Amino acid sequence: MKSEIQTVGTVRRPASGAQAPPVILNAPEQPSSLTQIPTAVVYCEGNFAKIDGKTANGLVRHSEAYRIVSVIDSTHSGENAGLVLDDVINDIPILESLNTAIARETFMPDTFIYGMAPSAGRLSPADRGVVLDAIARGMNIVSGLHEYLSDDPEIAQAASDSQGTIRDIRKPKASKDMRLFDGSVGKVAALRIAVLGTDCAIGKRTTATVMARALNAMGIKTVLVGTGQTGLMQGAKYGVAMDAVPPQFCCGELEGVIVAASEAEQPDVILIEGQGALSHPAFCTSAFILRGSQPDAVILQHAPTRAHRSDFPNMPMPPPARELALLEAFSDTKVIGVTLNHEGMSEAEITNTIAAQSEKLGLPVTDALSRPAAHLLAMVAAAYPGLQQGTPMAAV
Amino acid sequence: MKSEIQTVGTVRRPASGAQAPPVILNAPEQPSSLTQIPTAVVYCEGNFAKIDGKTANGLVRHSEAYRIVSVIDSTHSGENAGLVLDDVINDIPILESLNTAIARETFMPDTFIYGMAPSAGRLSPADRGVVLDAIARGMNIVSGLHEYLSDDPEIAQAASDSQGTIRDIRKPKASKDMRLFDGSVGKVAALRIAVLGTDCAIGKRTTATVMARALNAMGIKTVLVGTGQTGLMQGAKYGVAMDAVPPQFCCGELEGVIVAASEAEQPDVILIEGQGALSHPAFCTSAFILRGSQPDAVILQHAPTRAHRSDFPNMPMPPPARELALLEAFSDTKVIGVTLNHEGMSEAEITNTIAAQSEKLGLPVTDALSRPAAHLLAMVAAAYPGLQQGTPMAAV
Repeated sequence: MKSEIQTVGTVRRPASGAQAPPVILNAPEQPSSLTQIPTAVVYCEGNFAKIDGKTANGLVRHSEAYRIVSVIDSTHSGENAGLVLDDVINDIPILESLNTAIARETFMPDTFIYGMAPSAGRLSPADRGVVLDAIARGMNIVSGLHEYLSDDPEIAQAASDSQGTIRDIRKPKASKDMRLFDGSVGKVAALRIAVLGTDCAIGKRTTATVMARALNAMGIKTVLVGTGQTGLMQGAKYGVAMDAVPPQFCCGELEGVIVAASEAEQPDVILIEGQGALSHPAFCTSAFILRGSQPDAVILQHAPTRAHRSDFPNMPMPPPARELALLEAFSDTKVIGVTLNHEGMSEAEITNTIAAQSEKLGLPVTDALSRPAAHLLAMVAAAYPGLQQGTPMAAV
Repeated sequence: MKSEIQTVGTVRRPASGAQAPPVILNAPEQPSSLTQIPTAVVYCEGNFAKIDGKTANGLVRHSEAYRIVSVIDSTHSGENAGLVLDDVINDIPILESLNTAIARETFMPDTFIYGMAPSAGRLSPADRGVVLDAIARGMNIVSGLHEYLSDDPEIAQAASDSQGTIRDIRKPKASKDMRLFDGSVGKVAALRIAVLGTDCAIGKRTTATVMARALNAMGIKTVLVGTGQTGLMQGAKYGVAMDAVPPQFCCGELEGVIVAASEAEQPDVILIEGQGALSHPAFCTSAFILRGSQPDAVILQHAPTRAHRSDFPNMPMPPPARELALLEAFSDTKVIGVTLNHEGMSEAEITNTIAAQSEKLGLPVTDALSRPAAHLLAMVAAAYPGLQQGTPMAAV
């Protein structure tokens, strides 16, 4: 089987957080001329390789829209970003400060990316100073905060003075330009698979990214529709930052992106990135994702060693069987497999858990990162045996 | 039993749309001095007594924050608003135009309320002219549109020029002032009952309003938490326009309102108004309402004669049994009764349907408007037999 996916050998498992796709910058799928895309410094002070640094982590692992030249986090100053994150060296250093990051480059980096996604989505006073400094130095700003920097009078004025731009990834369109759900997603020919999970920051996007590549490598044309700010910053061609769209339009906006992807790409498969968890007391945007995408199938990402929901110490994690039952009760779909986030697990524990969960749930179980991509493909093929190059299939 | 609720005798059933609480303006619960609250003209051109006029309909039936002096809808010009809506005369005329509405008053009305809630939430070009005219005449503007009139440069400038105010009911707080769900709703002592439904504009708010009054009349202190723009315009003391809050904060903002109501009022019961339907492909904000309010119980509002979802001719209505199962699968709660919207039904049909549904579902069924409030109270008492004045009860 031809596959562009590299499997990971002896990888230090991150203590927690979203998983890494096993691809690094400058891999063949990157634009051939790196000088054509803007360079960017990613700011992640105190949070790199942690859950609240998931935007920076995602950009270090994969970025199509920006070339990441360095990460700022004084707590990891002097280390290598790939090594810290995944035990795989890359060409991105972690630096002390914006001063150091700029001093290191021959040319001024084009862009300052605010690379943290705190659950409250707000800018701290210390971070504000750094953002203003970046603007003063002529950098453009990219932010995934819920607080729109372009609406902040001081920051907006500073950007205007320095003729810089502010890109608020989460800022939705004006409501007059948003669309309501109308059921047209039901006419999309592609097989639709949503990659949902039992928690936030658990590796849904990563598993979906690995799966999209594996399917495309097999000649099964697959489009990944992003639903979060990290995927959009990474350069996702189709996506909507669901968490910032008014609920009235959530289902309709996602449907619109899926229909647009279907019309423009005529894919065999559309993968839809999940958000939060359907069972999550605080973040259940997956409800809108299920209604708006009307998926034929769901793949459920789970972290067996995670004791409680990310950022919520008194909310226990749901067992996968319960989340699976909830998903199938809530939506006319079926869960076709479970994928693991191996945080805190040894190789042997991964192997044993895959076997045990597969037996318990009666479903294929794998780990998108530590196991061969063929296992992910087998999961899809088991549910859709006729799926092959150029042959979009109805659900079996 | 002491009750302030009047039962309705021979009422013409509206063809469709949300139901009316059987109370009219100037009832005893209104502020004693009507001159102390602002006067308002409600604009509802072409839509009064229809589903998209539900904001105007709600305000004509009940308004604590504004005294409604007239409704503008040229298609009902010269008629009485109460008569058109509920076959019960009130003191609100329906007039041809803003000119006529102003000419009729001794004093210029304080406020122009845009009284339509089209599902797309947008201002038409014709309506824009009327809004600008009202501003030019010195009126303040209130709007429940998703499109914030205060963000519209032309309208904002006009209001500024005339020193008028614009109140966008749906405009959420800045995200930095919004809160995340933290589970504190679990510590609220009051019994929490959510009034959900099988569709939009089906009478959830009305049933909740009738029930809140009936419970309070029995000495069971009850607070109604609104979740839509109509309730907020009517002057609801506790509420949040859920459909305009970013999904990230939906559960947390609702939780915050419930906790605030609990602390300030120490009620026995908190009723939570639902939105849309959990099964609705386009509008499933009820998912956030269930997660954010963690209700002990749910009452399900249903319209037996409605063939398809409001505004969506090709989406069939769910049977109540299916919605009930979905609600109980999605949330750790129980449905304790079903309330009917009697649109398109005769008295005999209402009686037969109540009996048939009650038998089929094994639950109390009533109609908040055409049947005595005692039936609603009995529904709650059957599930919480110990609930009485001053004795908040745990779920049985």
